[in-house]
Formats: sequence, structure tokens, C-alpha cells
Amino acid sequence: MRHDHLIGAKQLSRADIESVLDRAAEFDADPTAFADAHPDALLALCFFEPSTRTKMSFETAIKRLGGDTVDMGTVESSSVKKGESLADTMRVVEGYADGIVLRHPSEGAARLAAEFVDVPVVNAGDGAGQHPSQTLLDLYTIRENAGLDDLTVGVMGDLKYGRTVHSLAGALTNFDARMHFISPESLRLPRNVRFDLHESGAVVKEHTDLDAVLEELDVLYVTRIQRERFPDESEYRAVAGEYRIDAETLADARDDLTVMHPLPRVDEIAPDIDDTDHARYFEQAHSGVPVRMALLDSML
Amino acid sequence: MRHDHLIGAKQLSRADIESVLDRAAEFDADPTAFADAHPDALLALCFFEPSTRTKMSFETAIKRLGGDTVDMGTVESSSVKKGESLADTMRVVEGYADGIVLRHPSEGAARLAAEFVDVPVVNAGDGAGQHPSQTLLDLYTIRENAGLDDLTVGVMGDLKYGRTVHSLAGALTNFDARMHFISPESLRLPRNVRFDLHESGAVVKEHTDLDAVLEELDVLYVTRIQRERFPDESEYRAVAGEYRIDAETLADARDDLTVMHPLPRVDEIAPDIDDTDHARYFEQAHSGVPVRMALLDSML
Amino acid sequence: MRHDHLIGAKQLSRADIESVLDRAAEFDADPTAFADAHPDALLALCFFEPSTRTKMSFETAIKRLGGDTVDMGTVESSSVKKGESLADTMRVVEGYADGIVLRHPSEGAARLAAEFVDVPVVNAGDGAGQHPSQTLLDLYTIRENAGLDDLTVGVMGDLKYGRTVHSLAGALTNFDARMHFISPESLRLPRNVRFDLHESGAVVKEHTDLDAVLEELDVLYVTRIQRERFPDESEYRAVAGEYRIDAETLADARDDLTVMHPLPRVDEIAPDIDDTDHARYFEQAHSGVPVRMALLDSML
Repeated sequence: MRHDHLIGAKQLSRADIESVLDRAAEFDADPTAFADAHPDALLALCFFEPSTRTKMSFETAIKRLGGDTVDMGTVESSSVKKGESLADTMRVVEGYADGIVLRHPSEGAARLAAEFVDVPVVNAGDGAGQHPSQTLLDLYTIRENAGLDDLTVGVMGDLKYGRTVHSLAGALTNFDARMHFISPESLRLPRNVRFDLHESGAVVKEHTDLDAVLEELDVLYVTRIQRERFPDESEYRAVAGEYRIDAETLADARDDLTVMHPLPRVDEIAPDIDDTDHARYFEQAHSGVPVRMALLDSML
Repeated sequence: MRHDHLIGAKQLSRADIESVLDRAAEFDADPTAFADAHPDALLALCFFEPSTRTKMSFETAIKRLGGDTVDMGTVESSSVKKGESLADTMRVVEGYADGIVLRHPSEGAARLAAEFVDVPVVNAGDGAGQHPSQTLLDLYTIRENAGLDDLTVGVMGDLKYGRTVHSLAGALTNFDARMHFISPESLRLPRNVRFDLHESGAVVKEHTDLDAVLEELDVLYVTRIQRERFPDESEYRAVAGEYRIDAETLADARDDLTVMHPLPRVDEIAPDIDDTDHARYFEQAHSGVPVRMALLDSML
Repeated sequence: MRHDHLIGAKQLSRADIESVLDRAAEFDADPTAFADAHPDALLALCFFEPSTRTKMSFETAIKRLGGDTVDMGTVESSSVKKGESLADTMRVVEGYADGIVLRHPSEGAARLAAEFVDVPVVNAGDGAGQHPSQTLLDLYTIRENAGLDDLTVGVMGDLKYGRTVHSLAGALTNFDARMHFISPESLRLPRNVRFDLHESGAVVKEHTDLDAVLEELDVLYVTRIQRERFPDESEYRAVAGEYRIDAETLADARDDLTVMHPLPRVDEIAPDIDDTDHARYFEQAHSGVPVRMALLDSML
């Protein structure tokens, strides 16, 4: 892969993805062996929204590559609240660093930033838009545990608002994957996402009940159903309760079912699953480091 | 010393303590000479509460050892407020770093974290609980200035709520120390701490007045009396005023009296003491670096 | 240059300034070539006020020199709000780092800090006071684009409250510069600044209209007129509108006019200037890195 900027997973071909995942596997095998890879690299972290996982794993990734970070800090501690435009902030920051990781609440922010600067920009989440490095680490975890060929994936929870889910589904159309989407009617995949999947020729089915499809799954990707999506607390409780899983739920699943979650979870996945072989969500979070090392290595 | 986690000072034997202090003395003698000690080490800083001294000195310590930090940032800038449990956050962070320094408002947080992760956890303060690296740097300062044998220590101020004081008192029972506790009646040592000291066979006396014992002291450890402990502002002023010291207060003290304070101070110690040879509280804060270097060096 | 502390631009002679700018030019030519310059240096960043540019460029500068930072974090995340004095905080921090960069809302804070510590202190802005590294990077940009000899500079906008402007004007008296100050009557240079310029023998003129002088200028330094300086929104709009520039405004300017701005801008400079050869404000911001590298290199 060689891209100036990484804005969305859609810009990545199957070959691009496999190249990143192959390189990530090398880093994963021995993360501390590459401390000489980019000794002079400075990566600007520009997080206009809170983040733990994404920010810390980018920070870890560049430091494992021998580089370092320059941190914009929180919006409250920066000049942003003096009314500076994103374009101006980015043009200033490009003078400090060799690359920019940008999280921003507005969809399209990363694309805009990329138009104004010459250093590579990585989109680390732009509102309801894209978060391509998350998609890559999801694919990495799937490949490591279930492979990316002849794959049956279930995606459950909030399928309407979750950018993670939309992006992953799109990326899976590059591979030989059957997709099952399990959600309440009110939170099913948006029409445009369904249309794109259909256009790509992907095998896609929708369900309101996990039981209908659980036994077939190689991977079950669970997402959080957010309280604020429901006008009424009692309605939320009723719906959310049906899309929680625990060890008993998985009794009929395949032994090698891989359970994933982008985290943070609240209670969609009961703690009694944590110690089973199904649980791969912490491993999934950890793979953010080698995957982002691979990304940065290819861009810097 | 070789411990997987450092949760409380109580887990440390006299030999453990002396081993850390000896190693700290080596680092103290030449702090910049160990930049090759841990070149690949990444230390996660997870501070769920504000901190200046502790956080900065851990950051300095790992960097002086050639390593680097991965910072969770403030709670406001992290995913924690999305409702993630501490156990989940810790299990994610262990995938990024080689060790975790944790400060948390809840007592027992560090012990809980240690149960869930495989990388070493250092408790950097858990509410009213433990803060063992503070105790070690207190002991280091005492040893450097007064020695740890045949020692007479006075501890003055808020003895009821100060975790620093409880922990230091417990650790001193490993050594040949007589302890005098000076406080208003309402802020005397809690019953359980007195009981533990008594059980250990320590020589302990309580006073309401510094004058009664000042001349005997090798070390006077002063702590802040917090306004919020008193229902009434005027009562606070009356009490706090009696436990402030200035150069005149120390007129009858031994010439080699060592005055310590965990900092921040407000006005418990008058500025006219700062330039005397008694004042060791800034040196005490500075010793956080070599002591934490020694701790990290033994754990990473 | 060899100073223990950098508090204000006034302490710098012409030779001092030229020495820093010469060294900065070396760093600018190849910023990543000096990673072995200060491999053990730790620089404390103590920002008691929000900052993007200044903080990030100091962070970049020390890291490009091979050193690293120890960050106090925001005031909210530190012990400062427990009531610690600045003098105490500084005396603690000097034990962690080899130098201190201090931004503080109170004028005189850096000078106070310098009295209490032995490591070098760099004033990175003290309220309405000084911000000498900003002045140095302004001079660097002027020298690179227009030279510092036989120079005509216009400074426009809020000349009353802008510490940047006062400091730059003072520094320019070391060189062969004619100065034109363009502002509304209510925001003209303060009396004491005018007096100092007059005393120094500088050639200074004041205007309320840019047209009167535009054609003569080698450099036009624009600053932001802040809404909060005016009692009335409509008055603000009327005044501010007259001190905005766009490509059309510059039609009569010299082809090699250098337009500068300390940033952040709001709308004082229209975006249609950004792509012209006049626009040097992003370059100006970027030069913060080599100039601060030169400063730190001379002080650490």
C-alpha cells in the first residue's frame, strides 16, 4: 500500500488490505523488534473528541516504531476554541510533524484536512463518517481467528448508527464472506448501506433474532445499543436486553466462534464470556497496535 | 525485590525496601546515566484523578530509563465516561504497554486491576487506600538525611485522613524508629492504624502539641490540614493555626532536624523555613524520580 | 547567546538575536539531522493556560533535538488547584526536568519562577507580559523573507492589547527598521510602548488607514481585533471590518510584500491571500520549531 492519506476503508483494495494485514502480522509477532524503523518520525495527534483506545494505540504504534508524538491536547487546552478553522490548525500542525492522526466530530473533516496539507493524514474517526484503521484491525482479528475465506459473519446490535459496522461490512465485500445482520427493526442497517452491499454482490441477510443464525457463524461482532437512541427508557431496556449475550446464549454456537466488539462495552457481552475461548474483543483492541504500526510504516 | 505488582507498602519487607532504596541511590547519583536501561519499555499512565508530582515523576523516571509513556489522558478526554468498567479499560491498556501506573479515586482499584492484567501494575494512589511509591520516597529522604536506624520521627497535622501518613507509619515499623504523632484530638490517627502499630511492637506516642516533643526529633513530617474536614471555617482556622511551623517554631529543634512534607503545602510550613537546612520537602519530591526509576527498573 | 533564563525579548542584544536566528537557520535547513544533539534532555512543559502552537512547537523542538518532554498537563488535571503556589510548583518541577517552559496567565510569572529554580526557564507567555520566543520567530520570518536591514514594517490591528506586537516592535529597534502602526484610534499602541520606541530613536508613524502606507511596506504584520474589546457588537463589526485584508486590498502592495500573522486568525486575512506569495503566516508558525530548537540548544 502507498497512499498519501487514509480517509476511508473504501479507498483500500483487497491487495492493499492484505498488504497491511501481512505487515501487521510481522509487527504482532515481535512488537519491540522495530524500534529502529522510524527513529526520526513525529506523529501529530489531533483529537478533537475524546478517545482512549484509538489515541493510545496510535501513540503506542509510533513509539514502537521508534518515533514519537506531538499532542494537540484536548480542545479545551488548545487554541481551537479561539475560533481557528480546521484548515488553519492543520496547516500549522503540518509544520511540526511528519504525519497527522485526526479525530473530529464532523463528517468529512479528515478529507478536508487532507486537501490542505502535504503530510499524510490518517482519519481516526470523523463523526458518523469513517474510521478506517478500526476496520483494518477488525479484519486483522477476523483473519487471525477465522480466516477471511469462506467466512460467515454475524453483526449484532445498533446497525443503524454504528460507523464501525458500516465500514466493516463494506470492507468484507472484498472477501468471500456471508453476512448476517441482527438488530431490532428500528436499528437495522441504513438503506444506503444495504444498497451498497447489494450492489457489490455480497450475500447479506437481516434478522431480528440471533437464534436464527447463531449456529452458522464463524464470527459474531457485537455492538453497543445506546440509550440515547430511544425516546423512552423502558423501551430501550426491552430492546437492548434481547441483544445481550452471555455464556448460556452461546451454548449452541460453534466451538470456534469468535466473539468481537469494538469496545467500550457496557453490558452487551456478559463477563462470563470473557474467560471463554470465544472472547476475542481484548485481543481485537490490542491488535490496534500492530495494525497501526503497519499503517504508519507504509505512510511515513 | 521482584513483585508482579506494587499495590501497597505492606507487601514490602525490610529487605525489599532497602533493595529499592539502594538502587534509587545509584540512580540519584547520576540520573542521566541509565538511558539504555529500558529502551523499549512503554509505561501506561492511567490517572483517573488529577496529579502533578506523581504523574510527572513517573513520566520522568521511565524516560530517564530510556523508555517512554502512553498516556490515557484525563477521564474527560477518554472513553471512560462512556461507562466502561475499570477491568475492561485495564485489559485494553495491557495490550499497549509493558506496565501500568494507576491512580484512581476508589480504594482497591489497583488490586482489582492487578487481578485482570498480566503486566505489572503500580498503585499510584487509590482513594483513601495506598500510595506505596510515596512511602518509598519518604523513606528514601529519611534515610538520606537522618538514617533509618535509631530514628525519632514526628508526624504532624491531619493524621486521620492522610493515607501518606498511615502508610509511612506502617513502613517505619520495619526499622528502629520511635514515632510521635502530633495532631488535634479530632484528627488523631485512626483506631485501626494505632492498633496495627501497637501490634507491630512500635514505640508510638501521641501529642496535641509539637513543643512537647520537638527537641527529640530527627525528622518532622508535616501534613496539610484540609479546610473541608471542619464544619466551620473559624474552627478550622483556630486548629490549623496551631499546627503551622515557621523558623521561630524550630528555634528549639535540633540543628539537623529534617522537615518533610508530601506537598502540595498551603501554609503549614512558612516560607522562612524554605532556605534553612531543615527544609527537605523539595528534595523529597525530587527523590520521586530515582525511587520510581528503581521501582520500574525492578518491575519491567 | 548564553542566558540562564529567557524572560523577555528585551534581555536580548542584537548579537544575541542574530546568533539564535543563525542557529535556527541551520536547524531549519535539516530539522531531522540533530536528533543526537540533546539525547538526555527532558523539558518540562508547564502550561497554565491553553496553547496549541507554542506548546506543540516546543514539544516538536525538544524532540527534534533528541530530547523529550515531561508535561504538567492542564491546570484541571494537576495539583495546582489544590492551592499550591507557583514558586512551589516550579521548585518541584525543577527536580524532574533540565529546563522549564512556562505559560501563565499572570504577568511576571516567568520572572518569579526564574528566581526560585536553577534550571533554565523559558517564558512562553505571561499574561499581558512577554512571549520572547514568539518575537524571535517573527524576526526569523522577517529576516528570511525581507531581511532585517533597510526594512519597512507595517503592524495592523489591535495594537493596544497585543503583547506580540509590543515585543516585536521593541526588538525591531535593534535593527534598521521603519515602523508604521495601523489601527483604530481606540486600539492604538499604548503610551508607554510609544515612549520606549521614541526613546530608542526608532522611526515610527501611526495611521488609521492601511492605504496611506501600504505601498511602502516590506512586511505587513496583521493581528486579530478581539470582539471582547468593544462594548457593542455593531461597533466591533464596523471597526474590525476596516482592518481586514483580502487579495484586492493588496493590489497596490509591492509584489514581494510579506504578510504575517501570529495566528490564530479569525477573518482578518481572507483565504484568497493564502495561496499568494504574500502569505507567510503558516511558514511563520512553522519557524517556531527551528527557532525554539535554537533557543533550547543554547540553554540546555
